Amino acid sequence: MPLVTFQPSGKSIEVASGIDLMEAARRAGVAIDAPCGGKGTCGKCLVKVLSGTVQRRDGGVIDPNDPPGIVTACTVVPGSEALTVEVPKLSGYDGGKFAEDAVSETAQSGLLIPCDPITRQVAITVNQPAGDAVEPDVYRLLKSLAVQGCNTSTEIPLFVLRNLAAVLREDDGRVTVTVSHPENPPCTVIDVTPGDRTSRHFGIAVDIGTTTIAVQLVHLDTGAIKATAAEYNGQIPCGLDVISRINYAHRRGGLEELKQRVTDTINRLIGIVCINGAIGAGEICEAVFSGNTTMTHLLLGINPEYIRLHPYTPTLLDAKSFSARDLGINSNPNAPVYCSPGVGSYVGGDITAGLLCTEIPRSGEGTYLFLDIGTNGELVVGNRDALMTCACSAGPAFEGGGISCGMRAATGAIEGVEIDAATGKPRVWTVGSAAPRGICGSGMIGLVAELFLKGLIDPAGKFDRSGKFESIQVAGRQAYFELATVHQSDTGKAITVSETDIDNLIRAKAAIYSACALMMRQLELSFEGLDCIYIAGGFGRFLDIEKAIVIGLLPDVARAKFHYIGNSSLNGSYRVLISRKQRMLQQACARAMTYIDLSNDSGYMDQYTAALFLPHTDKQLFPSVNIRR
Amino acid sequence: MPLVTFQPSGKSIEVASGIDLMEAARRAGVAIDAPCGGKGTCGKCLVKVLSGTVQRRDGGVIDPNDPPGIVTACTVVPGSEALTVEVPKLSGYDGGKFAEDAVSETAQSGLLIPCDPITRQVAITVNQPAGDAVEPDVYRLLKSLAVQGCNTSTEIPLFVLRNLAAVLREDDGRVTVTVSHPENPPCTVIDVTPGDRTSRHFGIAVDIGTTTIAVQLVHLDTGAIKATAAEYNGQIPCGLDVISRINYAHRRGGLEELKQRVTDTINRLIGIVCINGAIGAGEICEAVFSGNTTMTHLLLGINPEYIRLHPYTPTLLDAKSFSARDLGINSNPNAPVYCSPGVGSYVGGDITAGLLCTEIPRSGEGTYLFLDIGTNGELVVGNRDALMTCACSAGPAFEGGGISCGMRAATGAIEGVEIDAATGKPRVWTVGSAAPRGICGSGMIGLVAELFLKGLIDPAGKFDRSGKFESIQVAGRQAYFELATVHQSDTGKAITVSETDIDNLIRAKAAIYSACALMMRQLELSFEGLDCIYIAGGFGRFLDIEKAIVIGLLPDVARAKFHYIGNSSLNGSYRVLISRKQRMLQQACARAMTYIDLSNDSGYMDQYTAALFLPHTDKQLFPSVNIRR
Repeated sequence: MPLVTFQPSGKSIEVASGIDLMEAARRAGVAIDAPCGGKGTCGKCLVKVLSGTVQRRDGGVIDPNDPPGIVTACTVVPGSEALTVEVPKLSGYDGGKFAEDAVSETAQSGLLIPCDPITRQVAITVNQPAGDAVEPDVYRLLKSLAVQGCNTSTEIPLFVLRNLAAVLREDDGRVTVTVSHPENPPCTVIDVTPGDRTSRHFGIAVDIGTTTIAVQLVHLDTGAIKATAAEYNGQIPCGLDVISRINYAHRRGGLEELKQRVTDTINRLIGIVCINGAIGAGEICEAVFSGNTTMTHLLLGINPEYIRLHPYTPTLLDAKSFSARDLGINSNPNAPVYCSPGVGSYVGGDITAGLLCTEIPRSGEGTYLFLDIGTNGELVVGNRDALMTCACSAGPAFEGGGISCGMRAATGAIEGVEIDAATGKPRVWTVGSAAPRGICGSGMIGLVAELFLKGLIDPAGKFDRSGKFESIQVAGRQAYFELATVHQSDTGKAITVSETDIDNLIRAKAAIYSACALMMRQLELSFEGLDCIYIAGGFGRFLDIEKAIVIGLLPDVARAKFHYIGNSSLNGSYRVLISRKQRMLQQACARAMTYIDLSNDSGYMDQYTAALFLPHTDKQLFPSVNIRR
Repeated sequence: MPLVTFQPSGKSIEVASGIDLMEAARRAGVAIDAPCGGKGTCGKCLVKVLSGTVQRRDGGVIDPNDPPGIVTACTVVPGSEALTVEVPKLSGYDGGKFAEDAVSETAQSGLLIPCDPITRQVAITVNQPAGDAVEPDVYRLLKSLAVQGCNTSTEIPLFVLRNLAAVLREDDGRVTVTVSHPENPPCTVIDVTPGDRTSRHFGIAVDIGTTTIAVQLVHLDTGAIKATAAEYNGQIPCGLDVISRINYAHRRGGLEELKQRVTDTINRLIGIVCINGAIGAGEICEAVFSGNTTMTHLLLGINPEYIRLHPYTPTLLDAKSFSARDLGINSNPNAPVYCSPGVGSYVGGDITAGLLCTEIPRSGEGTYLFLDIGTNGELVVGNRDALMTCACSAGPAFEGGGISCGMRAATGAIEGVEIDAATGKPRVWTVGSAAPRGICGSGMIGLVAELFLKGLIDPAGKFDRSGKFESIQVAGRQAYFELATVHQSDTGKAITVSETDIDNLIRAKAAIYSACALMMRQLELSFEGLDCIYIAGGFGRFLDIEKAIVIGLLPDVARAKFHYIGNSSLNGSYRVLISRKQRMLQQACARAMTYIDLSNDSGYMDQYTAALFLPHTDKQLFPSVNIRR
């Protein structure tokens, strides 16, 4: 069987002949960017053949126009017994950067909330058995717990019972008991350990993003964050977005694999925070997970198929409490695991968690907009009277997908562009200051804003074909803009942006803006009336508000009203973890939200069509942009 | 490493040198009779060397008086690279006999109880999702269940949720839902399957004996017994009685091994009843287990150590409901598993289940005695006013232990003896009509009764040394009775019974009788006043009531008052399985019982000492025996 080695990781795997390199990478645990999920349509899964040969999977010949040695991993199979390929490194994959951000974004805000977690630890002394009456260990334990306010219908799971006899006798009956829901029956014992260990009461808050997973280790009685770690979601090799993951789950064994991959990532991160926080994983006695509806289904191992099919019905939305053992999470096996409740198939627990980081759930006079922009955009508009949410499919343009030279924000991605107004010549900045390999989502927004402000494109996104700008090249009906020449680029090809690419970005921004506009109209609100616009999520961190307004992605309101709230899904999970009140607030908020399915809304297409211009068909909506152009 | 082969099974295992044959047999899964648990004291674990050589584990020489090639497995190690030994077959090990008995004993009595199990199956139609509102699968299922009387706090375990989406769509929403406790919250969904499968509602009743395990497959809506199977408890190689099992659990990994062994036996039996009953194991949605307190702890994987140590405290006694998955039982993973409640460390769920097969739990005018005789005797005395129970340690004499030529009721065991009153010569019957190899417990009772009635022994169990009976041989201070000559026996040795052996049997019967007498006195009852004496358990089947009265094991009352109730632990489990009323009755009964710890009772030793005669010191108690002798 051919042996395939992936560089720079050095990971190797033997695969049966006929297995494509994408699948080989997946099995070897090597992440390759593939927005289309390996269907051979996006052309993004480029790898470089370092030694050995490859053949096209379909038996065809490799396009001679392609740069030599650069192939799409999903379309080729090994052609020699030994094959070594190089995979472009995904930026930030080592996790350090994510972790740092996550800490700084969450640390302060959390400390304002009084700690009141659903688990409690009490140090008690259980009487040793006396000779005259048979009082089983369980009976004596419950009697001592009753004094602490736990009712007698308290449940003790099998895993606590198994070694209870020895634990109750190790330190003369002095034990620390961790219980959940001490006030509300049925109260459950999570752990019984010898001695007084009440200072060691820990939990984890987890954000399960489609792309990134972050885990935060928290001391439950002080709210102190002991450690945070983040990593790419191990499911990435099975598809980049939720739809490709759902498709993957449909394969034989696919659902189990996806579940295992996300669990493995979480457990690896738990291992890291436990080492950094100097605690044992068994001391984690509570966990809160927030993810979109598909991520939650996959974490629980629930078939997600009907989330993808009309009428887009999930198996569950509401917050359910399972045990860590049911989920295979590396912690105390009895630790209750709470999944943040979702509102619809495309507005999940990450959003209801994120809202806790805003003023939206609190009754007040203000009116707010919450935006989480990515492949899927999730939006919430709310004030004291109404709370409305919807999701819109922006497509992968913001993550570099659907753009001919697009890529994720990895090393070599163009993330900034400045255009000389006179010549139209570009100056570019790349991630890692490397030779350019492509352009990422925030780079595209910056580029289109520049092209538009400097007059290289018109409001419809069409290039100036007058010949005034030499960076604009026309070939037949198509025109394109050259960002880097074949000599400047790292791929052996010039890096260009075509009108089709610009059109894809315009469609993406129109999807988001029109969804916002539709919700505002339904609630009879105006953008000007908003007190605050919260921008959440990883993409938001790289978003230049000014340029986003220029292209018409964000509404043209006072810049001070925009607030970037970081990883609000993680921060919200933290809040739910340490505070029962926050948990109730989240549930009330989820129940109160009206979920709009845009695919069923007749007004959405009108709004969307009107937004397919730069910045918008209705120029009045973007006064500040009009002034600048 | 030496390779040891056990015949007639042909099972082989390689073991490190120094591992004794008892341990090798345990690892190979070969059962060898060893009442002392492999301590080298009982001399019962005889095996025959067919080829190869053995050495004594302690380096000593093998006793030249021993018959050649016959060794005790726990004292020898392989002396050659290949070794083949023959293990005597345990009678009934193939299971057929047990199964037959179990069916016939239980079938009729059960059918009188109306079926009202804790699980219920309903066929419902769950609406398909409509386009306008997001109603998750779980929500629609619960709404349909609410119509059937299940409240909305119904819990749905993860294992049902995982494939719920497909199940709800396979047959247009027509599903069969199995729920437990449909009336009492929290009601739990056990299974959801497509279509109407309400005719397939099954459960299992299980008796977990220290020696034998029996599983009965039951249709829960009709009470029909679909199949029954029994087998020796797979824990036997780890020790014959509960104390040696508890000692074994103390080894590293011993508890896990014991748990695995009992689970394996149960799962093997479930496999058999499922094939015979033509159902899938996944269709089993409820299980009831009854065993003594140690067996229950080991099944649940709970450390049993303190059951053995003063003051003999179990971890739990009361009935707890776990899931089959928690226990590793091969059935629907969500099936609730109920363990019959125990009363004390030595009166367990097998007794509270057994009582359901008697009049004792029902209010009435009668007074009853319940006796389960084995290595441990469990006793219950009760009438409308009081219910008292205790356990006494009879020692292994009733199972052939502690008797020089004793053995279990396996092929070649002497089970019946008739003595010629004139010559004292014995005529013997053996199990399987084979050449005699030893004498089993019921054989010993019959022998001692004969010896006593025919005047060969006196009330103290001492032989007539007048020389009148040539079958009595005197050697120094010891005398013994020859049951089979060296030529008649199959072991190469004569089969004899010594005064020490008789003394051991007298101690065993005295332990049982005196415990009964003590309880009767404490309740101010007389044996004559009893309406019924129930004899339960496997040993009871072979017990000759008349002979048991002659030796003073059972009280001398009208013979018609004795009722053998068979495997009442299995029968009681069946009742609890099909009827919630029976379950409540059992729990009430367990709560109502007063548990007497004989080791703490000052009067017990007096009663015991008085019973160390044939039939008793107080001859008045046994009038019918006096007449016969």
